[in-house]
Amino acid sequence: MSTETKPLSSTPRTTLRRHKERGAAERSSLYEVLDAGLVCHLGVIADGVPLVLPTAYGRDGDTMYLHGSSANGTFRAADGQQVCATVTHLDGIVCARSAFSHSVNYRSAVVYGTATVVREEDERWQALRVITDHLVPGQWAAVRQPTRKEMAATAVLALPLAEASVKIRTGMPADPPQDLDHSVWAGVLPMSVAFGEPHTDPHVGADVPVPAHIRDRCQHGNPTAVGGAAR
Amino acid sequence: MSTETKPLSSTPRTTLRRHKERGAAERSSLYEVLDAGLVCHLGVIADGVPLVLPTAYGRDGDTMYLHGSSANGTFRAADGQQVCATVTHLDGIVCARSAFSHSVNYRSAVVYGTATVVREEDERWQALRVITDHLVPGQWAAVRQPTRKEMAATAVLALPLAEASVKIRTGMPADPPQDLDHSVWAGVLPMSVAFGEPHTDPHVGADVPVPAHIRDRCQHGNPTAVGGAAR
Repeated sequence: MSTETKPLSSTPRTTLRRHKERGAAERSSLYEVLDAGLVCHLGVIADGVPLVLPTAYGRDGDTMYLHGSSANGTFRAADGQQVCATVTHLDGIVCARSAFSHSVNYRSAVVYGTATVVREEDERWQALRVITDHLVPGQWAAVRQPTRKEMAATAVLALPLAEASVKIRTGMPADPPQDLDHSVWAGVLPMSVAFGEPHTDPHVGADVPVPAHIRDRCQHGNPTAVGGAAR
Repeated sequence: MSTETKPLSSTPRTTLRRHKERGAAERSSLYEVLDAGLVCHLGVIADGVPLVLPTAYGRDGDTMYLHGSSANGTFRAADGQQVCATVTHLDGIVCARSAFSHSVNYRSAVVYGTATVVREEDERWQALRVITDHLVPGQWAAVRQPTRKEMAATAVLALPLAEASVKIRTGMPADPPQDLDHSVWAGVLPMSVAFGEPHTDPHVGADVPVPAHIRDRCQHGNPTAVGGAAR
């Protein structure tokens, strides 16, 4: 059954107390924010203190997969523990008439849950496929797949998409009415992620063109470029 | 005294155990990564579990300032506690001949330390100036400054830049020699943050042009655009 239509859970920590208008309640919004990102910021408690590490990820239905080196102590610390994984897209700088009303346009997803180091080989394989194709759709089938030794060197963390908070800010500054008469410029400086032309590795033979799925990634790959202040 | 030349501290948690070649030991690298960003991901422990929130910030010498609503429970949870603030720039997707060797080009700074809610009004004022000018240099002087009520509604967190880990990956994939013969495209898909044309708020009078410092921000504002895979 598709989960697209299930609303996001509402728990005390995912219930917005301020700027409730920025909350997105649909599960599809969570998917959109996650699918548009490349790295999340994974927060774990290690030796009693918080640690926030940028980490590649992918999404398979209602599971977020993260991967790292099997020597990664953070993943060991996360196994079976409550973690938090956050994905943020910046869509613009919001310039107001007052310093106080400045803001940014953004889309963010904060996912809470118990992380598990995946041990079952089939699921690990599937997770790595998902993470690779998240980076560049179609890439898993185009490249050499992992050896047994590479699989042993790789740790995969699973995080269920059961409890999450999605926030989206769009549009113009929210200056109070009495500030609107100030003769100060106000507006939005839209930001987006742009891909440049692919740089081919010098060892690649002259007979190997840039494949279509790589070109697609550079042209349409990141929805950040089409989101943003104009929405 | 300038601290530019002081090396970054080396502590057990800032000592890289893998990919040591990605470590940057100069304090100036920390400044560069922080100064090029707009939001950090702040990790705190709240009710015993990690929480990672995207948060605006600025840097004043060797202090990082973050701000939020004074009703923000996360800031209260962080006061006097060990926190972690991470800034990450994505500069490219690194496509290798094997799934295993895929990577991203990035610059990241992970700052560890004890956060303090700033209570002294002069420092709070200075911090808000720093955060506003970090968003758009020159903006503090151009807009209405905070009222007493706005100051009361704002919480400022200070984090000393005493312990940090800076990592930078650049360049082509690191495929093992035996993979170089594979007839697979490999290379880097460069990414950068691009500003679009400023969108003027419809309430701004037709006689108010886009100021020069706003135009500057859009054209040269984010060093992400000049870093990246080409380095």
